[in-house]
Amino acid sequence: MSNSIIQIHKTSSDSKARTGEMILPHGPVETPAFMPVGTNGTVKALHHSTVNDMGYKLILGNTYHLFLRPGIDLIKEAGGLRKFTGWKHNILTDSGGFQVFSLAPFRKIKEEGVYFRSHIDGAYHTLTPEKVVRLQEGFGSDVAMVLDVCTPPEIEYREAVKALEMTTRWAARSVKEWKETDDAYEGQLFGIIQGNFFEDLRKRSAEEIISLDTPGIAIGGLSVGEPYEQFRDLLTYTAQFLPHDKPRYLMGIGTPEYILDAVENGIDIFDCVLPTRIARNGAAFTRDGNIALKKAPHINSHFPIEEDCNCHACRTYSRAYIRHLFKAKEILGPMLVSEHNLAFLYKMMEEIRESIREDRFMAYKKKFLSRYKAKK
Amino acid sequence: MSNSIIQIHKTSSDSKARTGEMILPHGPVETPAFMPVGTNGTVKALHHSTVNDMGYKLILGNTYHLFLRPGIDLIKEAGGLRKFTGWKHNILTDSGGFQVFSLAPFRKIKEEGVYFRSHIDGAYHTLTPEKVVRLQEGFGSDVAMVLDVCTPPEIEYREAVKALEMTTRWAARSVKEWKETDDAYEGQLFGIIQGNFFEDLRKRSAEEIISLDTPGIAIGGLSVGEPYEQFRDLLTYTAQFLPHDKPRYLMGIGTPEYILDAVENGIDIFDCVLPTRIARNGAAFTRDGNIALKKAPHINSHFPIEEDCNCHACRTYSRAYIRHLFKAKEILGPMLVSEHNLAFLYKMMEEIRESIREDRFMAYKKKFLSRYKAKK
Repeated sequence: MSNSIIQIHKTSSDSKARTGEMILPHGPVETPAFMPVGTNGTVKALHHSTVNDMGYKLILGNTYHLFLRPGIDLIKEAGGLRKFTGWKHNILTDSGGFQVFSLAPFRKIKEEGVYFRSHIDGAYHTLTPEKVVRLQEGFGSDVAMVLDVCTPPEIEYREAVKALEMTTRWAARSVKEWKETDDAYEGQLFGIIQGNFFEDLRKRSAEEIISLDTPGIAIGGLSVGEPYEQFRDLLTYTAQFLPHDKPRYLMGIGTPEYILDAVENGIDIFDCVLPTRIARNGAAFTRDGNIALKKAPHINSHFPIEEDCNCHACRTYSRAYIRHLFKAKEILGPMLVSEHNLAFLYKMMEEIRESIREDRFMAYKKKFLSRYKAKK
Repeated sequence: MSNSIIQIHKTSSDSKARTGEMILPHGPVETPAFMPVGTNGTVKALHHSTVNDMGYKLILGNTYHLFLRPGIDLIKEAGGLRKFTGWKHNILTDSGGFQVFSLAPFRKIKEEGVYFRSHIDGAYHTLTPEKVVRLQEGFGSDVAMVLDVCTPPEIEYREAVKALEMTTRWAARSVKEWKETDDAYEGQLFGIIQGNFFEDLRKRSAEEIISLDTPGIAIGGLSVGEPYEQFRDLLTYTAQFLPHDKPRYLMGIGTPEYILDAVENGIDIFDCVLPTRIARNGAAFTRDGNIALKKAPHINSHFPIEEDCNCHACRTYSRAYIRHLFKAKEILGPMLVSEHNLAFLYKMMEEIRESIREDRFMAYKKKFLSRYKAKK
């Protein structure tokens, strides 16, 4: 379609994997793409320039966190989130739905919106679908997400129905508000499919959200603690309903195995705090699986995390030294492993895109997984 | 003298300030020079490449800390401290005297050496003057420091005499051991003048230490909590005894006012944890004095720490954003301010060296201090 924000260059014959380019206000983004998470407007322990130099052109911010601190007034005064943070490329902001709903019992959902107490100082706040759109307009987010109603695994069917229905109503209100934002605001709005772990509800939510015709569509509420098989089955089931001419965003995934499943199901973008979170605890991605650098076997590993990795950490420092940094509680430890893990994922995404262009994605996936063992 | 490791290029006519080049195994170091402290083999919160790119060619490590963790065997196995840490230039290692004596009451001084319990795990250890030299040989330290007996301010005269005398005996043992190190070890040994805050003892210690003819001489035991005037008076008094043909090292100072006093008294090198320690707490050096970035006035300071500073932090980020990072406890905050503070000092040292070459150091000092107010 003419006003689609994604151009698909190649679709696999062996799966639903696809590669292309998403067109956003601050430059194109090659897809499929992993988005590093910068909850507070910083990808933890990394300079923006480091993230940029790796190749990332789209990072995440979080509306809930940025709304509470430093607050919308300051960000607007600075000229938006990009000017405030110094990040030059695209920013997608999550709506904060997931964060607010994690605050239970310190939050209450009403038709109007969600009432909650700040995790920082206990102060009372309200977020409505409209307000969340306006906050993201104020941030200047390149992609804004609708406020949705997130639910944990193993809730009752009728609870899931209620959440789904409210998510749809809130999405409709968000779209209406987004259409009324200032003409100068170029950000794209993405709807979010919910439906918990019930197939019929996933289908219904997909249909309702897709009917709102937002520029992009996200799948929310997966990878929230459910067993892997359930995640994969619901992903596959839900993804089949997604339109081809819109970016498809699977929220909250970013480990190599999950990424491969997402791409196989035609997902274009995804995000996760995990690659940088585990890094701050000394866990590094390698082609042979994750390694825990704090553990004893690395005491005298006088070689890099990965011999053939081109990241700054691997070009300069040994596992033994990085282990020492973690043992001595030195900030450089988290800095180095965070950089490596994001460099690892960027390289993996480059390989994935190449494999799709060459129509050998499933072979790539199989080869990758034959070597990669997640739980090492 | 022919085998001096420092070449003095210019001595001021208005003070004892001097500029030159110290010749060390891993390249020359322009003096006067501030040395960033990397206690555990890392200048906290900074990549080695960042420290290097600023211009620093000599950093510190700490024998006490590195002996306890990761230990000499691992560092030797890696090929020395430079290979282990990835730092390409010179390393001076402090002997650990100051750190061990700070452990009171968990340490006992005997003629043989010092017996103490590790601050990490309470394990019992011994450091002797000979062992400390051999540890630094194992590290491959470009400059090794003798083990000295440090004393706090306001001790009895006779206590200061005892410490001084033992410091001299230990220094003599250190020199003997250093002369017996492997021919392949190119590190230089520096003696340390003690004498607490008694002028006659400072003079006596200076004479005794200088008589041992180590390649460099350090002044220890100043800037340990005494009033500023007492520091300055004892520095001026002690510095007059220092030989001209050897590097002169004032231990433990690194704030702008103290640096200017040190240079005025003909000191060539100095170190201090303070520039990076206060940085991790959000305090930044500026030409107008230190600023506490966490404080309210910086909430909406949409401009850099210093407009005319060329460091990465100042070129990219605002005070308001850095304040936000500290409030949100983001690692990037300490990373940025640490970088700024070391860049600030490097620039200041460049200006100092230039002012000495142009024989206007005292005018530079006066102008600098007329603007800089430390306690802002």
